[in-house]
Amino acid sequence: MKLFRQLNPYQIVLLSYGTIILIGTILLMLPISVEGIPSLTFIDALFMSASSVCVSGLSIFDMGNNFSTFGQIVVIILVQIGALGIMTITTILAVIMGRRIQLRDRLLIQESLQRWSVAGVVRLVIVIVKMTFFFEFVGGIILTMVFWSDYGFTAIYYGFWHAISAFCNAGFDILGGNNISNYILNPIFNIVLLLEVICGGLGFAVLLDIFQKRYWKKFGINTKIVLATTFILILMGTVFTFILEYNNENTLAPFNIFEKVMASVFLASMSRTSGFSMLDMNSLTEPTLLFIMFLMFIGGSPASTGGGIKTTTLAVIFAAIWSLIRGRDDVVIFERTVPPIVIFRALSIFFVSASVVFLTTMFLCLTEDIPLGKIFFEAVSMFSTVGLPTGTVNEMKPSSRVVIIFVMLMGRIGIISFGMALVIRKKKPKIRYPEDKFIIG
Amino acid sequence: MKLFRQLNPYQIVLLSYGTIILIGTILLMLPISVEGIPSLTFIDALFMSASSVCVSGLSIFDMGNNFSTFGQIVVIILVQIGALGIMTITTILAVIMGRRIQLRDRLLIQESLQRWSVAGVVRLVIVIVKMTFFFEFVGGIILTMVFWSDYGFTAIYYGFWHAISAFCNAGFDILGGNNISNYILNPIFNIVLLLEVICGGLGFAVLLDIFQKRYWKKFGINTKIVLATTFILILMGTVFTFILEYNNENTLAPFNIFEKVMASVFLASMSRTSGFSMLDMNSLTEPTLLFIMFLMFIGGSPASTGGGIKTTTLAVIFAAIWSLIRGRDDVVIFERTVPPIVIFRALSIFFVSASVVFLTTMFLCLTEDIPLGKIFFEAVSMFSTVGLPTGTVNEMKPSSRVVIIFVMLMGRIGIISFGMALVIRKKKPKIRYPEDKFIIG
Ligand SMILES: [K+]
Ligand SMILES: [K+]
Repeated sequence: MKLFRQLNPYQIVLLSYGTIILIGTILLMLPISVEGIPSLTFIDALFMSASSVCVSGLSIFDMGNNFSTFGQIVVIILVQIGALGIMTITTILAVIMGRRIQLRDRLLIQESLQRWSVAGVVRLVIVIVKMTFFFEFVGGIILTMVFWSDYGFTAIYYGFWHAISAFCNAGFDILGGNNISNYILNPIFNIVLLLEVICGGLGFAVLLDIFQKRYWKKFGINTKIVLATTFILILMGTVFTFILEYNNENTLAPFNIFEKVMASVFLASMSRTSGFSMLDMNSLTEPTLLFIMFLMFIGGSPASTGGGIKTTTLAVIFAAIWSLIRGRDDVVIFERTVPPIVIFRALSIFFVSASVVFLTTMFLCLTEDIPLGKIFFEAVSMFSTVGLPTGTVNEMKPSSRVVIIFVMLMGRIGIISFGMALVIRKKKPKIRYPEDKFIIG
Repeated sequence: MKLFRQLNPYQIVLLSYGTIILIGTILLMLPISVEGIPSLTFIDALFMSASSVCVSGLSIFDMGNNFSTFGQIVVIILVQIGALGIMTITTILAVIMGRRIQLRDRLLIQESLQRWSVAGVVRLVIVIVKMTFFFEFVGGIILTMVFWSDYGFTAIYYGFWHAISAFCNAGFDILGGNNISNYILNPIFNIVLLLEVICGGLGFAVLLDIFQKRYWKKFGINTKIVLATTFILILMGTVFTFILEYNNENTLAPFNIFEKVMASVFLASMSRTSGFSMLDMNSLTEPTLLFIMFLMFIGGSPASTGGGIKTTTLAVIFAAIWSLIRGRDDVVIFERTVPPIVIFRALSIFFVSASVVFLTTMFLCLTEDIPLGKIFFEAVSMFSTVGLPTGTVNEMKPSSRVVIIFVMLMGRIGIISFGMALVIRKKKPKIRYPEDKFIIG
């Protein structure tokens, strides 16, 4: 207990994730977790457990055909814990950091929470859980109806399983093989999955703001940035996909114009962080793949189930660079000045994230005999916990999988937090007060 | 004249470069510039002229076999103007920015120079020119001796031509075909070329500091950072190349241990910015190529003939991230605190540079049918004006060459300066005073 108290909050987060991943590993190694294949090895189970908790959606098994119902339920519970954990932890951190943003903000949660009544935090967590279950319940009902004609009563199980997988931005599916592609032209399936994924990726604070305030003018600064950036990214992704894949015989060419638009919106939205895909990833053109890499790298929004460097980070960096080039002293977004420390954090997150992607690419290049372009794509996908199904990870050696696990964990916990968890601090920080309430990364 | 006075210094720099490139283009289009091939088209001449002025060293011709002596002399004069121009302009800018570093530092040179006597600036430029000629003269003499046995009197021409190309970090050669590889095991050739390239890449201010102060303890902060970072980068590059290529039959395997080390040092040093290569670039292993991409992206030092984001930028970013993770308020390098605005600029340079490389890759992906990995490598090479001879650029369409010209120019002038040249400012900046004399980018 004494050791535990000496840990900083980032170390506690890392330790909690590690513990849950290990419990998941043990459960997934049980023979009852699989069906028709031998029990998972430790590395494979560890990979699947970490991939679930980190909601990366990278899978080395066809969970529909090779995992038992028990195994599938273990996975979706791990997904739910991982997603809720991040949602609640990062929301609380964000609330606290809104009070104390500084270079030295290694706020000890316990210490900081003294300013918030314990009841307040508990209430916050309850609202987050309620909201999550609301989204998953509504999505589950509608997906059940979609699946009903094909699967009968199993549709209930499939409906709720995929609703959770979607809202948590995990991107796993258990329909087996490429059966999810059967629904590529079903508008209801598309829209429900899209809404689940996008809402999950907006983050709890933004969802709450939208529900409570309802009008754009009343939204907080972070809500505005998140909504605007999300809209622009999806729009750009849709337009790019539509144009670049228009004549691609293996992707959009066979569809009519409405279906082309729908599939483009779907790909653009799913590439950002959920990793569901109904198109064959290996048939996409190279420029489309590059643009997807960009979308993946940006990822979702802070305190959401999405990964990446986050929409607000991108927005702050863009505003800062624009100020720099225009020769302005202050960085302004939506009539609010961004404090310099936030700009510093945003740019640092970009630098460290790009470095992690580069080092991951470098490492996988050393151990694997896979073309550089593909490895680079997978590195971004791992780091941003997107996990689009390219099949590349299946070709990789077990040693690479261990590295992938660490990269996913880094991407999930947040790169700066991960670093802070690994470094032992010596001095106790002085407490200072911040300039504004921007949240990044 | 009135229009000219309304331009900001960055626009003047861009305009000067544009003018010199155009003059070079016209000269290179003359039939007397080539030998045995038809006169260059406008696009090809523009490309070669821009590549020379930007000291990128990217060439779509074998200048040894296809360019006449006249054409070769035009190229080396353009290289010299480009390199000296950047050396002098950026040194002066650095001197000025040492006085006024701020978010809004669009210092109008004329205005700022009022604080420096015109005589002082002229003297500065004269010292830069003298130092350049000193390095090129000594290098030229030694290279002449190296070439003598093979080329007789022509060795004088070749010696000085390549000394200039090396000190200016252009990386062009005119020996024709792969004849430069004949000298791969000649230690004198290796050492002279290495020293020229490395010294050129250190930058004028650092060279002057070394000459005048002689002892590490007396060096300025930038000199220390540049020397330390340069040493670490070359050391890492050497070790990586040595290990990764040790058993590669097409590169290091045939050499003995001493030759292996020499070739590794050579590749590591040349990849940073000069772009000379005696090994077959297309035979290197993928991890080596990735590490070279890293070295290229970092490039040389500020106010030098090297490109990239610069050694000091990397050092500042590393120090800043280390502080962030350690939870420190201040960023310290060699017992000096880095002002926040410098950190901001360093991180911004990294962000914008990475974005330019990504967008270049994306564009070339759209127009060219070349594997993603190769295009990515070339994009870094263009931006950092390294121009290692991979032959990939020769395969590209003329439309791509126009894009490459812009990327080289951006890389050469400096990415932030380039942006500032393109944006029209409205308000006159207030003048403020800086905290310290760090130079980055
Ligand atoms: K995912
Ligand atoms: K070069």
